[in-house]
Amino acid sequence: MPKTAITGLLLSFDLDRARSTPIYKQFLNQLRNTIETGLIEAGAKLPSTRVFSNELGVSRNTVVQAFDALTAEGLLASRVGAGTFVSYSSASVAAQTETRIKEPTNLSSKGYSFRSLSNRGRALVASVSDDFAEYPRTFMPDVPDLREFPIKSWLRLLAENSGRLTGEISAKTTSGGYEPLRRAVAQHLGASRGIRCDWSQVIVTTGTQQSLDLTCRLLLDAGDAVWLEEPGYIGARSVIKANSGVVCPVPVDDEGFGLESTVSSHPMPRFIFVSPARQYPLGMTLSRARREALLKFARSSGAWIVEDDYDNEFRYQGQIPPALYGQDRDSRTIHIGTFSKILLPSLRLGYIVVPPDLSVAFANARAVVDRHASLIEQMVLAEFMNKGLLASHIRRMRSLYRTRQLRLVAGLNELLGGTVKFVGEETGLHVSLRLHETADDVELAVEAARRGVVVRPLSLYYATRKRQQGLLLGFAAFNERETIAGLAALSGMRAALKNAYAPKRGE
Amino acid sequence: MPKTAITGLLLSFDLDRARSTPIYKQFLNQLRNTIETGLIEAGAKLPSTRVFSNELGVSRNTVVQAFDALTAEGLLASRVGAGTFVSYSSASVAAQTETRIKEPTNLSSKGYSFRSLSNRGRALVASVSDDFAEYPRTFMPDVPDLREFPIKSWLRLLAENSGRLTGEISAKTTSGGYEPLRRAVAQHLGASRGIRCDWSQVIVTTGTQQSLDLTCRLLLDAGDAVWLEEPGYIGARSVIKANSGVVCPVPVDDEGFGLESTVSSHPMPRFIFVSPARQYPLGMTLSRARREALLKFARSSGAWIVEDDYDNEFRYQGQIPPALYGQDRDSRTIHIGTFSKILLPSLRLGYIVVPPDLSVAFANARAVVDRHASLIEQMVLAEFMNKGLLASHIRRMRSLYRTRQLRLVAGLNELLGGTVKFVGEETGLHVSLRLHETADDVELAVEAARRGVVVRPLSLYYATRKRQQGLLLGFAAFNERETIAGLAALSGMRAALKNAYAPKRGE
Repeated sequence: MPKTAITGLLLSFDLDRARSTPIYKQFLNQLRNTIETGLIEAGAKLPSTRVFSNELGVSRNTVVQAFDALTAEGLLASRVGAGTFVSYSSASVAAQTETRIKEPTNLSSKGYSFRSLSNRGRALVASVSDDFAEYPRTFMPDVPDLREFPIKSWLRLLAENSGRLTGEISAKTTSGGYEPLRRAVAQHLGASRGIRCDWSQVIVTTGTQQSLDLTCRLLLDAGDAVWLEEPGYIGARSVIKANSGVVCPVPVDDEGFGLESTVSSHPMPRFIFVSPARQYPLGMTLSRARREALLKFARSSGAWIVEDDYDNEFRYQGQIPPALYGQDRDSRTIHIGTFSKILLPSLRLGYIVVPPDLSVAFANARAVVDRHASLIEQMVLAEFMNKGLLASHIRRMRSLYRTRQLRLVAGLNELLGGTVKFVGEETGLHVSLRLHETADDVELAVEAARRGVVVRPLSLYYATRKRQQGLLLGFAAFNERETIAGLAALSGMRAALKNAYAPKRGE
Repeated sequence: MPKTAITGLLLSFDLDRARSTPIYKQFLNQLRNTIETGLIEAGAKLPSTRVFSNELGVSRNTVVQAFDALTAEGLLASRVGAGTFVSYSSASVAAQTETRIKEPTNLSSKGYSFRSLSNRGRALVASVSDDFAEYPRTFMPDVPDLREFPIKSWLRLLAENSGRLTGEISAKTTSGGYEPLRRAVAQHLGASRGIRCDWSQVIVTTGTQQSLDLTCRLLLDAGDAVWLEEPGYIGARSVIKANSGVVCPVPVDDEGFGLESTVSSHPMPRFIFVSPARQYPLGMTLSRARREALLKFARSSGAWIVEDDYDNEFRYQGQIPPALYGQDRDSRTIHIGTFSKILLPSLRLGYIVVPPDLSVAFANARAVVDRHASLIEQMVLAEFMNKGLLASHIRRMRSLYRTRQLRLVAGLNELLGGTVKFVGEETGLHVSLRLHETADDVELAVEAARRGVVVRPLSLYYATRKRQQGLLLGFAAFNERETIAGLAALSGMRAALKNAYAPKRGE
C-alpha cells in the first residue's frame, strides 16, 4: 500500500475527547475497524507510533498500548527493526467466523483482494465516525425534549387512519413520497419559510442524512469540490467524503459564510453547503449582502447551493429570515429540512425541495435508494400537519425552550460572575460561549463530563487546524430540575471556566 | 452529445405493455423526463423516429406523436432536413419556474453544463422505471393481503412501548440498527433458515431495495460485473445499473442458476445475485449440486454471493431448503431478507446478514446513507417477534394463502380444460404458467388488463431478447369472491389462453 494511502487513513480517524468512550478505546476500536474492514491490507506497514501520535494528537503511550492489544488479537505483527505490519487473516477473525479461508485462486480480473470492498465502498466506510445519538445527558446540544413528543395525538391519528394501510396509501404514493404529505410540506414552507413551490418539488426523505447523501450522489462525481462552512456540520463533511467529494472549508465570520475569502483559494465547487437561517453551530444569520453575493456566485460559476434549514423553527428574538431558496431567482438552490428536531429524532422523516427541473431526477433517485420512507409515518405526519397540530406543537415548544434558554443563560451569568456574551442566542436549541484562544475547550469538556455534564467543544466543528475555542450548551431537552443540577455540577469547575471565558484584551 | 451516449439513452427507456399506462403515454413521459432532467442536453440531435421505433419496439406513429407533443411543449424543435433537436430552456420549464435563467459565465473547471447532474447521478436516474406499488388488483403478484396485517396487535404494542421513545431506544441503537430487533432477527433466522450468526452480523435496513443499494455501493466500482439470474428480479438489475455496475444475465433451468454455461462468456463478477430458496420469478429451488458449484466458484474466483431470500416463508409442499448463507463455509455470502411480504410493504423494514468481517463496514455505510430505519417501527417489530406474533402470523398466512392458491389452481385447470402444469407451485405468492414459444404473453396481459385482471408477462423479467413466454398470477392478496370474479373475467379470453398454453409437441 503506497504511503499516501496510509496517510489518508490517518485522516479517517475521528477521536473526540468529549465522548464518554476514553481516547485510548476510541483509537483502539477505530484502528481495529480499519484493519478488519480491509482498509489497510494484509502485509501493509503501519506508520510509526510517533506519526500516529503527532497526526492524531494522542500520546505515544496510547498508540503503543493499542498496537500491543491488536498484536495480542493477532491483527498486527511486529518485526524487530522493521516496524509494525498488518497480519490480516488473523486468528481472531478465523475464530469469529469458525471457517477457514482457503487459499484463493482469485480469477478476478480487476485485482481486488480476496475479501475486499470496492474503492467506492472503502471511501464510504472510511468517512464514518462511531458517533451516535445517545441517551440525552444534561446540556447535550441538538436534541429536543423527547418527553414532549405528543405521543397520544400521534397514536390517536395512527389508529384513526390505520384503515388506509390496506392499499389506499400505496395508491397515493409516488417515488417522491406520499402525496398528501408532500402537499402539506409545500403549504407549511409557503407559510413559514417564504418558499413558493409545487408539491411535486417536495421529495420526502428519511431525514437530513439521506437528503445529503442523495444530493451528493446526484450532483457529485469523485474528486469534485464542495465548499462548506468552517466551523460547520460534521455530518455533512462525512457524507461528502463518503461520496468521494473534496471538502473545502470556508471560514464564517459575524455575517456568516465568507465567500470572498475563498474564491481564489479553492477549486470551483459543484455545490456550496450553507446554513443561512442559523449558522450551525455558531448561530449567526447570513447577512443580506452575503446572500446576494452567494446567489450571484452560484449563477456565474454554475455551482449549486445546498441550504440546510436546520433549527429555523425555534427563534426567540426578531424575525425568522426567509429561506434562501425563496430568494433565488435562478433556481440553483436545493433546500433541506427535517422533522427530527421538531418532533422526534427516532421518527425518520425529512424533505428536500428542489427546482422544478430536478424534481423527477431526485424523486427517481430517491426510489432507487430505498423506495420510500415508512408510509405509516408519512400518513400520520400528513394528518398531524393538516390538523394544525405541528404548528401548535412548534409554538408550544418555542415558548418552553425560550424559558429554558433564559434559565440556562441566567445560570451561566451567575456562574461566570458577569454579563456573558453568547453567540446565536436568538434561536436554536443551544447557546455557544466563545473562549480565549489560549483556552482548551476539549479539556474543559472532559472535566465537565467527569462531573456528569455535557458541554461540547467548538473546536470539534472545524475541519482545519485553525480552530476557535468555545463551548456549546444545549438547553431544550432539560427541565428546570435538570438544568439546575447541571449548573451545580459546572459550579465545581467555576474557576477554570471563568479563566477560559474572561474577555480578551480589547473586548 | 456523442452518438454512443444517445444510444445508451435508448437503453434507459423502460416500456411495459402490462402497465395500466398506455405505451404512447409511457414513451412520452419517459422522453420528457429524459430531457427535463438534462440526460439529453440542449442542442442535442435525437435519433430518428425509425431508430426509436426499432430499438424500443414501438410503432413509428407512437414516436412521431410524442415528438409532436414535446415540440408543442417547447422541449423539442425540428429543423427541416436536419432532424429533431432538444431545445432545452423551453417555455414550459421557464413558465414552471417563473424565473429566467441568465446566460451563465460557467467558471466550473470540470466542464459540467450549467444545470447538470454528475455522471454518477445520471446513471442513478437513468436506471429507474416509473413502476410503483399500485392498489392491488386481482392476480397481481408480489403482494400479501394487506387486510390481514395484524394492525390491532401492532397498535397495542406501539402504545404499550411508547414510553421508550423518550430516549431509551436511542441508547440501544447503533449504526446496524436497534439491538433488540437485531437479536430477534438473528434468533428467527437461526430457527427458520439454518443461519448461525451473531446479532452484530444483522444489519437492519429499510428493505430489499436499500439492502441491494448498500451492497452495490460497498462491493462495486463503476464498470464491475454482476451475474444475475435470467429471468430475474427487475429491481436488482435497476439498482446495479444505478450504481454503474454491468449486468450479466445467467440463464436458469430446472435446477436454478446455470453457472457452468456462463463462466467463459461473461467477465468475472464482483458478486453473483441469486434467489436459491425460490428462484424469482420462476419458483424452482437451487439444487444441491448447483449450490455446491456456486460456493466453490465464489471461493476460487473471489466473487461475493448475494442471496435474496425472498418468499421463503410461504412454502406449501415439502421442506423449506436452508439458506445458502448457512452452507457457505467460506463466509462469502451476503444474505438479504425482508418483512415487506410477511407484514406490510408500507412498513419499511428488512435486513442483511453479513460475514463477521464485513459487519462494521455494512453498519457504518448504513449509518451514512440514512442513519437508521424508523426506531418506532424497529421497536414494535422486535416486540412483535419476541412475543411469537410473527411466527404465528406466518403460520396463519401460510394456511390462508395455500387455500387461495388451491382455489386459483383449480380454477385455471377448469378454465384451460385439463391438467395445467405450473412452475413453482410449492411456495410463494404467485404461480407461473409457461406458454408456447409462439405465444405473446404481453398481448395476453393487455387483454386481461382490459378485462380488469392482472396477469404479468414472464418475458418482462428477462434482460436479453431471448425470452420465454409465460404468465405470473398472484393469489395471496385476493379472497374467494375476488378470485372467483377474476377467473370469470379470464374466462372471456379462454380460447386465447388455451391456445397459448396448449403443450408443445413432445410434452
